[in-house]
Amino acid sequence: MKNVFTVGNYLLDRLSELGIRHIFGVPGDYNLSFLDDVIEYEGIDWVGNCNELNAAYAADGYARVNGIAALITTFGVGELSAINGIAGSYAENVPVVKITGLPTTKVINDGLYVHHTLGDGKFDHFSNMFKEVTVAQTLLTQENAAQEIDRVLLSCWREKRPVHINLPIDVYNKPINKPSKRLLDDIVSSNQDALHQLLTEITPIINQAKSPVILADYEVYRYQAQEMLQHFAEKTGFPVATLSMGKGVFNEEHPQFIGVYNGDLSSPYIQQRIDQADCIISIGVKLTDSITGGFSHGFSEETVIHIHPFSVKAKNKKYAPVTMNEALLSLSNEIEQRNFEDLNIISVNSQTTKDQYVVKEGMITQKCFFERISHFLKEKDVLLAEQGTSFFGATMMPLPKDTTFIGQPLWGSIGFTLPALLGTQLADQSRRNILLIGDGSFQLTAQEISTMLRQQIKPIIFLINNDGYTVERAIHGEDQVYNDIQMWDYQKIPDVLGPKERSLTFKVQTEPELEEALEAAERDRDHLIFIEVVMDRDDKPELLNHISKRFATQNI
Amino acid sequence: MKNVFTVGNYLLDRLSELGIRHIFGVPGDYNLSFLDDVIEYEGIDWVGNCNELNAAYAADGYARVNGIAALITTFGVGELSAINGIAGSYAENVPVVKITGLPTTKVINDGLYVHHTLGDGKFDHFSNMFKEVTVAQTLLTQENAAQEIDRVLLSCWREKRPVHINLPIDVYNKPINKPSKRLLDDIVSSNQDALHQLLTEITPIINQAKSPVILADYEVYRYQAQEMLQHFAEKTGFPVATLSMGKGVFNEEHPQFIGVYNGDLSSPYIQQRIDQADCIISIGVKLTDSITGGFSHGFSEETVIHIHPFSVKAKNKKYAPVTMNEALLSLSNEIEQRNFEDLNIISVNSQTTKDQYVVKEGMITQKCFFERISHFLKEKDVLLAEQGTSFFGATMMPLPKDTTFIGQPLWGSIGFTLPALLGTQLADQSRRNILLIGDGSFQLTAQEISTMLRQQIKPIIFLINNDGYTVERAIHGEDQVYNDIQMWDYQKIPDVLGPKERSLTFKVQTEPELEEALEAAERDRDHLIFIEVVMDRDDKPELLNHISKRFATQNI
Repeated sequence: MKNVFTVGNYLLDRLSELGIRHIFGVPGDYNLSFLDDVIEYEGIDWVGNCNELNAAYAADGYARVNGIAALITTFGVGELSAINGIAGSYAENVPVVKITGLPTTKVINDGLYVHHTLGDGKFDHFSNMFKEVTVAQTLLTQENAAQEIDRVLLSCWREKRPVHINLPIDVYNKPINKPSKRLLDDIVSSNQDALHQLLTEITPIINQAKSPVILADYEVYRYQAQEMLQHFAEKTGFPVATLSMGKGVFNEEHPQFIGVYNGDLSSPYIQQRIDQADCIISIGVKLTDSITGGFSHGFSEETVIHIHPFSVKAKNKKYAPVTMNEALLSLSNEIEQRNFEDLNIISVNSQTTKDQYVVKEGMITQKCFFERISHFLKEKDVLLAEQGTSFFGATMMPLPKDTTFIGQPLWGSIGFTLPALLGTQLADQSRRNILLIGDGSFQLTAQEISTMLRQQIKPIIFLINNDGYTVERAIHGEDQVYNDIQMWDYQKIPDVLGPKERSLTFKVQTEPELEEALEAAERDRDHLIFIEVVMDRDDKPELLNHISKRFATQNI
Repeated sequence: MKNVFTVGNYLLDRLSELGIRHIFGVPGDYNLSFLDDVIEYEGIDWVGNCNELNAAYAADGYARVNGIAALITTFGVGELSAINGIAGSYAENVPVVKITGLPTTKVINDGLYVHHTLGDGKFDHFSNMFKEVTVAQTLLTQENAAQEIDRVLLSCWREKRPVHINLPIDVYNKPINKPSKRLLDDIVSSNQDALHQLLTEITPIINQAKSPVILADYEVYRYQAQEMLQHFAEKTGFPVATLSMGKGVFNEEHPQFIGVYNGDLSSPYIQQRIDQADCIISIGVKLTDSITGGFSHGFSEETVIHIHPFSVKAKNKKYAPVTMNEALLSLSNEIEQRNFEDLNIISVNSQTTKDQYVVKEGMITQKCFFERISHFLKEKDVLLAEQGTSFFGATMMPLPKDTTFIGQPLWGSIGFTLPALLGTQLADQSRRNILLIGDGSFQLTAQEISTMLRQQIKPIIFLINNDGYTVERAIHGEDQVYNDIQMWDYQKIPDVLGPKERSLTFKVQTEPELEEALEAAERDRDHLIFIEVVMDRDDKPELLNHISKRFATQNI
């Protein structure tokens, strides 16, 4: 049987073709024998997680850096534990292939009361749930496997959202034909008439605008359009702001970068520059509460040209199919290049933030911590910031060139970034990965440190220990017991969850102590570095202070 | 506003009326201000969990001992993390009230792109998912709250399955009237004609049977019919077997108890006694793969009289509505009492298992471990056994009188029992709670030890460390890397996750070492006791050995 080409081989070949080199998940008896194929497959490594939610978060992180990811769990128990992670990937447009191992076709057809079911003989309860958070779904048979695998994987790739492949455990080993052509031959391309119309109608609007500005967001990350964004910006000379969800899609050291827009919580300059622009070229943007200071953006819809992955919208008209890359390339050839005086002022200002950080005596505050970390960052780092103190603190830090910034401001599932870090680091081991996470969030998914140690990856983890759910205290119930958590001896966690020799741990409360830990982290790239940073319970980054008041008001 | 009676007060009053004294969950900004009411409510304690899946498991455990439980999470992220736990409660008929805090009615109606949503302005994705695993659902408004709360809570109570209450964060504090009558006035009662017909038609069948036998299962637990089962057994004199899902519903020290039925994996006597009976009075039974040796039960449907919570079925005829309690009481008045000779033999045999356990030198084996634990158990203990080695080992242990046995053989979500233990122990702190769990399962939900220490409960936890997913190895991939896990320094976990002075920990490999730990556990009731029991990787309880081969065959 070894030389027969099977449904499982077809699926793994396609995943490999899309660039997947690791598959995350948890074994279960409805996927075990297929996992034999995964283990045997050259070029794909199996990464067993501590639980399925963590596996889904890890896959999400992997996809954000790698472009796509895959995840295998068992039926029922496994897939439902993972579903919150998949929903997050759906909300934030992250392409994850969710593969669920099912009982055999015969067990399903006979409606048997087997384990991991609701005991009612029905096997579609959970695939129904997944329809709410995936863009394509399939139940594989030997007959449909080739077409169905291709169909759902193409959806995943095109829409950058999760898909659900149901693989009964009697199907993976059935023989089918090898694929005859590459999967990505059929990608979306622009309609030339639509593109021409776009150029004719939109170019003059942009050229006539007095204060055009580029506002870029996360879809630029997902569709790997960073280079084209930079080309477009440089050809036009327009200033560029990003939203915090897409922070880092444009080099923050670039002279045209003016900052991160946060509605009326932005710096006065950015707020005015965006809200009073007569033409906003919006690239890959979705306006949600967390990234607009609670819907406090002040610009009017009429000024916006929306460029999305496969369409452009402006003045109540849609041009489609037009890809983001082609739209930007064509427009950049037509738009007149201009100089903007304000960019010189901004550029001078931003220089000052790059001076050496001066270490003070005394306890670490939120303000000095984020300032210090912004100096610790280097080109090409991957920075993950957990929703809460970390995200709202990190959003305001200037990033070095080619830094990838990862947060989850729309879905906002606390605990996400720790397992996500496992994924981002495995996706590219040559880059330094840095995580900022609070103690409340850490407790949800802490065990995944164990998988990091097992995989021998070497990220740097800053655990901000400020004694509870600070982000929730900021919104409501500052002194309420429900925002308290049990204190852990955090710095011991890595030693308990894996071999001691694979990590270096620190617990710091003062600036000089932090300095020592950072120096060690800088020097030592052979260990996972875990730094517990103790801060005052009621200290908060300024942006969090403001946004949490907005959220509290939104809840009345 | 303090003296106004609100929707939140109404809900909490009703939960309290049903016997709920603890509510589990995790705070989030769409439930925070309602949590103020929970904290303030006299007679209900808030128990904050480390994550929502653990909270759902804890609620399930609580309901199994307490009769019903409640759980609060936030919208989207929180409810989806909990959904696997709720599905388990649905599968195994455990009544859990799932309360989700939603954004305000205005945010929902305006379709705003707020955090914890998919960013598409739709707010019913997750409540749609919950329809698959709950028996009633509602979205509360000030107008409908009283009727809707009563409707869904009655469903939960009647069907012993989860319900879903969606509570927008602007609704909980709106004034409504206090309830005018008690909730449980309207419970299901039997139809007297149906009951009469049942007695007329079924009594002769039972009286004419030569080898009648009682087979009882988990629904007896859920509908608190243990006393009636005992009454029925004693009035008829019939032998009683249970299935492992309902192990403990009948006193295993009772002279009429003949053992746990496991299809053809039962002891030869039980197998023959059940499979060859000419009349099986089946009380609260559902036959699933895990508890029938993979559907190897050998009796024929014609011999079975099915007694369920609200109906009786026999000879292709259904008698309904007839409650389990009334059916058993009425039948016990009609059926002739008989003596069964075989019961004397069984009774003598079971005496021998009660002799003192003789400690041997040498390493602890699975066989001696379960034998030893069966001697450690006392009347009224609550014993939880994780699906895997623990469950299949514990299934065969004789239990003392009034022991409650908790496993999850149908849903079988690994990691379930650790958070469930938090729930079972809080439900009744006067009973000794004992958990048996393997290392693979422990890693999924380990952080909930922290909540146990915070709540200062004192259960006894046996962690069976046999280096990986033994239950999966037994089914497939004995030496495959996907069944390996990272080794943890388990015995240190309690000290790292909470105050050292609240736990006693042990790591034992030999029988004398185990003895020492058991003696300490026996003596000390002021600490959480954590005993890491190291066993050989390839050692397995006999029943697991057999059932896993059946599962492997079922997957071909």
